Amino acid sequence: MTPAVVLLSGGLDSATTLAIAQKDGYACHCLSIDYGQRHRAELEAAARVATSLGAVEHRVMTLDLTAIGGSALTDASIAVPVDGLQSGIPVTYVPARNTIFLSLALAFAEVRGATDIFFGANAVDYSGYPDCRPEFMQAFEALANLATRAADDGRKLTLHTPIITLSKADIIRRGRDLGVDYAATVSCYQATADGAACGQCDSCRLRRAGFEAAGVADPTHYVA
Amino acid sequence: MTPAVVLLSGGLDSATTLAIAQKDGYACHCLSIDYGQRHRAELEAAARVATSLGAVEHRVMTLDLTAIGGSALTDASIAVPVDGLQSGIPVTYVPARNTIFLSLALAFAEVRGATDIFFGANAVDYSGYPDCRPEFMQAFEALANLATRAADDGRKLTLHTPIITLSKADIIRRGRDLGVDYAATVSCYQATADGAACGQCDSCRLRRAGFEAAGVADPTHYVA
Repeated sequence: MTPAVVLLSGGLDSATTLAIAQKDGYACHCLSIDYGQRHRAELEAAARVATSLGAVEHRVMTLDLTAIGGSALTDASIAVPVDGLQSGIPVTYVPARNTIFLSLALAFAEVRGATDIFFGANAVDYSGYPDCRPEFMQAFEALANLATRAADDGRKLTLHTPIITLSKADIIRRGRDLGVDYAATVSCYQATADGAACGQCDSCRLRRAGFEAAGVADPTHYVA
Repeated sequence: MTPAVVLLSGGLDSATTLAIAQKDGYACHCLSIDYGQRHRAELEAAARVATSLGAVEHRVMTLDLTAIGGSALTDASIAVPVDGLQSGIPVTYVPARNTIFLSLALAFAEVRGATDIFFGANAVDYSGYPDCRPEFMQAFEALANLATRAADDGRKLTLHTPIITLSKADIIRRGRDLGVDYAATVSCYQATADGAACGQCDSCRLRRAGFEAAGVADPTHYVA
């Protein structure tokens, strides 16, 4: 089987992306980044998801983004908004996060001899994030093809973003058809240690609305 | 003064790059990455260099690249070669390292409101490393200009690589003229805890030959 690296956050989008990569026949090497995020239950969810979908392995790399802060997710002094979607780039945006995550995935791919990277970015829900857009993904793929031994050997690196233009409802329907157990995933920006979701942050609102629009029962465990 | 982020390893090249950025009038925010490298004396050297050259600040970010390995610098089971330069990409090459370092510098730049990044990459000594070449740097700059808030606000991000085409001797002469104290820097891939250099690894050989070619006394502290 062809190896692929799959960035796995533990949330709904990346779980669906892993299911797609598995369905496409890749041997999936999952990578999660412990970057000091508040919602650490994500990482435990990522491990559950990797196991349940049959990934080859799941690695967690530690990166201390709290050393620079700049986001509600990495700086305890910035509150996570719970009063609905804001205009512009939200405070939960982590500076250059997708550039960082993709560069770490690229390193892991090189170590594993993989030339395929799967990334569950979405340009519909996260239209305010510059690094979620298709033109950013194309630029990263161009960079990756200049960055590694594989490029020197003439092997083309491909960045797959299979859900980038899907609505949340379409992602959920796709994942349901592929057997994703969404009860195992955690999307909340401020989930409790055991993975219970607040139901009020942007991520919870998007997720809940997605299940409603998809006509799929929401299996999320919310705090009382 | 205009803020800039300077990637600072503690070695000769990045110290010279910092001196150039300071001379050009930037307020320099230095970033070092503690990525599990064997030569940890580098990080202490970076702190000394930042202070001696008058940087605004020096931050160290921790990234555990040993979680994926793949290089003699991050995997204790792979030996550092001490028998002269090899052909091809050497085992001291760290997969996607420059992509990772630049992405972290980009994040720090965004947090500090900087649109200038200085990076002491060199395409002469490290011609075997794909991510040291000018075309890689151009591709990263293109990516960076799609990746952050600054891009959305119409502010152009510039990646400065002022020593990329200089020989080691030219770098040393340039730094000497700018007052860099090379005794404070550490280049050795397997420096001792107090920063003494082995004198035998590729990095030591390149550095020693550079001082000789520049006609500058080598201030490096070698092990007996």
